[in-house]
Amino acid sequence: MRAVDLIQKKRDGGQLAAAEIGFLVRGLTTGEVPDYQWAALLMAILWRGMDADETAALVAAMLHSGTVIDLAEIPGPKVDKHSTGGVGDKTSLILAPIVAACGVTVPMVSGRGLGHTGGTLDKLESIPGLRVNIPLDDYRRIARDCGLVFCGQTAEIAPADRQLYALRDATATVESIPLITASILSKKLAEGIDALVLDVKCGDGAFMPTIDKARSLALSMATIGQALGTPVRCLITAMDAPLGRAIGNALEVAEAVACLRGEGPADLMEVTLALAAEMLLAAAAATDRAEALDRCQRTIADGSALARLAGVVAAQGGDPRVCDDPAGVLPAAAERVAVLAPASGFIERLAARGVGQASMLLGAGRARVDSVIDPAAGVVLHKQVGDRVRAGETIAELHVNEPHLAAVPAAMAALTAGLAISQQPVPVGSRIIERLSGEQQVNQS
Amino acid sequence: MRAVDLIQKKRDGGQLAAAEIGFLVRGLTTGEVPDYQWAALLMAILWRGMDADETAALVAAMLHSGTVIDLAEIPGPKVDKHSTGGVGDKTSLILAPIVAACGVTVPMVSGRGLGHTGGTLDKLESIPGLRVNIPLDDYRRIARDCGLVFCGQTAEIAPADRQLYALRDATATVESIPLITASILSKKLAEGIDALVLDVKCGDGAFMPTIDKARSLALSMATIGQALGTPVRCLITAMDAPLGRAIGNALEVAEAVACLRGEGPADLMEVTLALAAEMLLAAAAATDRAEALDRCQRTIADGSALARLAGVVAAQGGDPRVCDDPAGVLPAAAERVAVLAPASGFIERLAARGVGQASMLLGAGRARVDSVIDPAAGVVLHKQVGDRVRAGETIAELHVNEPHLAAVPAAMAALTAGLAISQQPVPVGSRIIERLSGEQQVNQS
Repeated sequence: MRAVDLIQKKRDGGQLAAAEIGFLVRGLTTGEVPDYQWAALLMAILWRGMDADETAALVAAMLHSGTVIDLAEIPGPKVDKHSTGGVGDKTSLILAPIVAACGVTVPMVSGRGLGHTGGTLDKLESIPGLRVNIPLDDYRRIARDCGLVFCGQTAEIAPADRQLYALRDATATVESIPLITASILSKKLAEGIDALVLDVKCGDGAFMPTIDKARSLALSMATIGQALGTPVRCLITAMDAPLGRAIGNALEVAEAVACLRGEGPADLMEVTLALAAEMLLAAAAATDRAEALDRCQRTIADGSALARLAGVVAAQGGDPRVCDDPAGVLPAAAERVAVLAPASGFIERLAARGVGQASMLLGAGRARVDSVIDPAAGVVLHKQVGDRVRAGETIAELHVNEPHLAAVPAAMAALTAGLAISQQPVPVGSRIIERLSGEQQVNQS
Repeated sequence: MRAVDLIQKKRDGGQLAAAEIGFLVRGLTTGEVPDYQWAALLMAILWRGMDADETAALVAAMLHSGTVIDLAEIPGPKVDKHSTGGVGDKTSLILAPIVAACGVTVPMVSGRGLGHTGGTLDKLESIPGLRVNIPLDDYRRIARDCGLVFCGQTAEIAPADRQLYALRDATATVESIPLITASILSKKLAEGIDALVLDVKCGDGAFMPTIDKARSLALSMATIGQALGTPVRCLITAMDAPLGRAIGNALEVAEAVACLRGEGPADLMEVTLALAAEMLLAAAAATDRAEALDRCQRTIADGSALARLAGVVAAQGGDPRVCDDPAGVLPAAAERVAVLAPASGFIERLAARGVGQASMLLGAGRARVDSVIDPAAGVVLHKQVGDRVRAGETIAELHVNEPHLAAVPAAMAALTAGLAISQQPVPVGSRIIERLSGEQQVNQS
């Protein structure tokens, strides 16, 4: 078997066999198939696509390039959630304790933020002392003892994905549905989970700007997950505006704690509870959606979800008092700068991408993979889409420290470029756009 | 400027600016744009194509990645010919002395054979003592003194092409008209020529299997050559059957000498003289095609072309007696194996690819870039397409030495797989399919 012949086959629109894909992925990790051959193959895949059999074979090969964690020793179902990335998306921090409090284990391997989108690991690390780079033994122990664990991708998990991800980033081959599917699933299936819930963000602040692209990814994930024996349920949710009011790492942890105290903004609670309910359904821990939602809400009302968060924070070395007194524990920015409404009316648009970029410019995110972030920096929205506002009233506050003060004008410009105020009342709809699961797809076909 | 943005631009069907292409080619030679980014770009170019401006910019950038030879010190026009590669194609060895004898300098930088096709350098090296790796100073001196020179591509000439050629070979991106155009022209324009004649081989034994593909390449070469100030005239010639009767290195040198003595096969002489005449027209050394052909034929009749060959062979260290007594100078194979006609009739087909593969299997060609070739090995055809044959009569002789004797059955199978004998007389047409020049193209557009 020669890599060049397989590149040619894909270039000409052919279908690669599972053995051929296995050869190519093994060659990537051993170095026998050099980077430049994979780069040409990635472009050919972006051009020609991959069918479900090829994509499933690619996921399997990438998954087995590293350790596949076995959590069979932990009784009961294990379910995770993955988001394609958005602005102000702290749902993982809220739903993992909720679902754990419902008796379903949530072993979560998360990523870091890049560009205008944030990452769960960065948010967690704003809690003093908390460690996310934990050995596999601790991962298993914390998942068993606490019912949830938050972990960074280790060197053992899907090493082929780390290589391919870097190569795709450098070769303009990121935006390929089968390659995105393989990247997400190869990491998630290595966690030892029984089912996965995927939050496909759609809109101006999301990786998938259009509903068609979001649907394609959701369908691909559901189909391939099903083919590999791990059901994947997908929600497509709106990411035109930030989710909730806080954008920035410590700010989002504080908002997550507020949510677990029953004080969360409506849009964030809607998405979080919908995803949590889907996780319970995937785990067969509820018979229908109404029951699932009810169980989730009760873990907030009775404090059991907040207790789960305090437990996992403590288990990972963090200060659990963050759940009682976030302001007393989390870092705070030295400066706050108000963004004022330029006119009276109703907030019609407050673009997620603009707010995300503002937050990044203030030091909360990474312009490059190696940027250092400021855990205290970010944006707090005083108004959301649909809210009434008077000219001169505060719409948002920028939280910022040196040396990012110089970036305040640019951050303000990024935020206000995405701002529109209407003279008419603006209706606010649901952020849940569509639901899709592997079973549905299989039944339809 | 970032390479990844330029890859994305081409991936999305955009046009790269000359400065962007210059950046990418410089980055290739300095290592600042790594191989894997170029590999993805090559696949995107194969997919999306390049327009004439982009292709001309690519040629210019590759050309100026190395030394551009200046032959202005040599009076009169300098013209070269390039072939896209075929089986039994020894026209360079015949037409270069003819054109030189007409007073037009032919500075020729040639390549080696690969697969079923042969290379001029390999053929020349079958002459004892002859060197093709010569310094640039010798190249200039021999071109001036002999009116022609045969040289291998040196490290100074278009180094970006050598890198890209190797990368294309490994990434299934060879078959792209703009990339082929850039590869040929960047090398040829570095030779110091005023005009170029291109022989685009078309047919089963050629790199361009269809007339559409051959026309596309001819049109691209003519257009880009014109744009860069070097007129390119193209002939599209048939490569369904081998050209002439000899296939293999020393065997082809002997046939070239026979041609210069006026004893060449009709098909080979037709193509050779047509290309030589086109070179005279390109050099403005004849006013029309009939005059050009007449001048070329006279150099054979008066022995001046043969004398030119003897001169350049001697100047490059070879034994010039090869022109008087080829059999006495050239290496000969120890064994000859006859291939017999399986039936009586007329040769309808004798596929170039089959004969080329037979010759390669006997040791005359390279299966891989690093294969060692046997200069004496090859195939001599006793019959050509159209010839009458009796069952049991010799169609071809295989010339072979140890250790390739074991390959004789496979060689015979390759040759006879491409053999068809008809009961009806088979008409033999011209091998010249079409003519195209840059001026014609410019006038047409």
